[in-house]
Amino acid sequence: MPIDQTSPIEVTAFAWVPPFARGFVRDLRVRWALEEIGLPYRVRLIGGAPGMASGPARPENYLADQPFGQVPVYKEGALCLFESGAIVLHVGAKDERLLPRDEPDRARAVAWMIAALNSIEPRTSMLAALTIFFRDAPWAAEAHAALSPLVAQRLAHLSAALGDKEWLEGRFTIGDLMMVDVLRAIPDQELVAAHSNLGDYVARGTTRPAFRRAIAAQLADFIPDQAAA
Amino acid sequence: MPIDQTSPIEVTAFAWVPPFARGFVRDLRVRWALEEIGLPYRVRLIGGAPGMASGPARPENYLADQPFGQVPVYKEGALCLFESGAIVLHVGAKDERLLPRDEPDRARAVAWMIAALNSIEPRTSMLAALTIFFRDAPWAAEAHAALSPLVAQRLAHLSAALGDKEWLEGRFTIGDLMMVDVLRAIPDQELVAAHSNLGDYVARGTTRPAFRRAIAAQLADFIPDQAAA
Repeated sequence: MPIDQTSPIEVTAFAWVPPFARGFVRDLRVRWALEEIGLPYRVRLIGGAPGMASGPARPENYLADQPFGQVPVYKEGALCLFESGAIVLHVGAKDERLLPRDEPDRARAVAWMIAALNSIEPRTSMLAALTIFFRDAPWAAEAHAALSPLVAQRLAHLSAALGDKEWLEGRFTIGDLMMVDVLRAIPDQELVAAHSNLGDYVARGTTRPAFRRAIAAQLADFIPDQAAA
Repeated sequence: MPIDQTSPIEVTAFAWVPPFARGFVRDLRVRWALEEIGLPYRVRLIGGAPGMASGPARPENYLADQPFGQVPVYKEGALCLFESGAIVLHVGAKDERLLPRDEPDRARAVAWMIAALNSIEPRTSMLAALTIFFRDAPWAAEAHAALSPLVAQRLAHLSAALGDKEWLEGRFTIGDLMMVDVLRAIPDQELVAAHSNLGDYVARGTTRPAFRRAIAAQLADFIPDQAAA
């Protein structure tokens, strides 16, 4: 287990989130990357995001570390970093098992990571918002019906690009780490399962020992729901 | 002018897009980065995205270069790269004027670039889609009213992070390049103008000579609207 409270690397995580979000908070991506290369990290649990019903308050001055009040923040020596994508890129640069050293392979892996964050997730996160936060709004069903084909279109393109390869560039990289995490968070998993190679790809990612350790560590860190309510 | 059709660097751009999209297509980000460091590039004009009403067809096999059928694709020797964020990062790594060489400054600039792509643009691009593509849908006004405060919240956080600095980390980087391009594309510019420092920041970015050259080059490359219709 790379959790070691004496590690020089610190990652923030929320002490409490609603049950539907557990296992999906973005410190997972960083924990997963660190687990893949066995790099120890310590966890600093902080209060939840504003607007959350329960849990401890967010620390004062947290916005100085994370401008949008989210997790994770990553600290290592003089470096204080935010955005899970930027942190995973920073961790990836430490070890060839996450990010090839040489061009053009390195740049291609980065391209897939950015594709996950900017070509897939903007649509899928909005679908998730419609399903979770705006579920009861009178316009949500129609918006969902309009957005779903746009998500399906991107997933069809992604499926074609993956083809019968195990990973997007043939070997596991931070591009796959990010893509798998984005795909598994889609509330309408039938959109993913419509492409058997994408379903298999997500299964391949989420059964990696490093992923299993990362998600177990995130889940273990939450205050039990009753205690915080 | 860094456009030079003999350059070893090739950038794809659409030969035609609807008038509302002109000046906002994503090859702009790459042209801007290249203009900032005076690096010549050649342009390969391609047919528009599927579903666009006019213009030439997309080249066969284009999806092999760009999995989602978008622009830009960036070619340089053996490297074939997609995702404007990944390309801007690649170009940034060539020159300290775009991306500091040393940590932690380098990682901070990358974090702001990723913030533009994954914390700001997922919300603002959906607002743009509601304003442009779904404008006539009966649910669009209510969805727009629900989404606007989420955009405003992120912009308030961004405004606080920028404070009275000229650029997000004090000096211009690829983080500013990407953030300015995301902010200027928000259809509801009053959301930006609500924070005078953000309005000034966008103006500072879009009056840079390199930006002016980049957008002039993109606009000059489109087939005139009448000719294509």
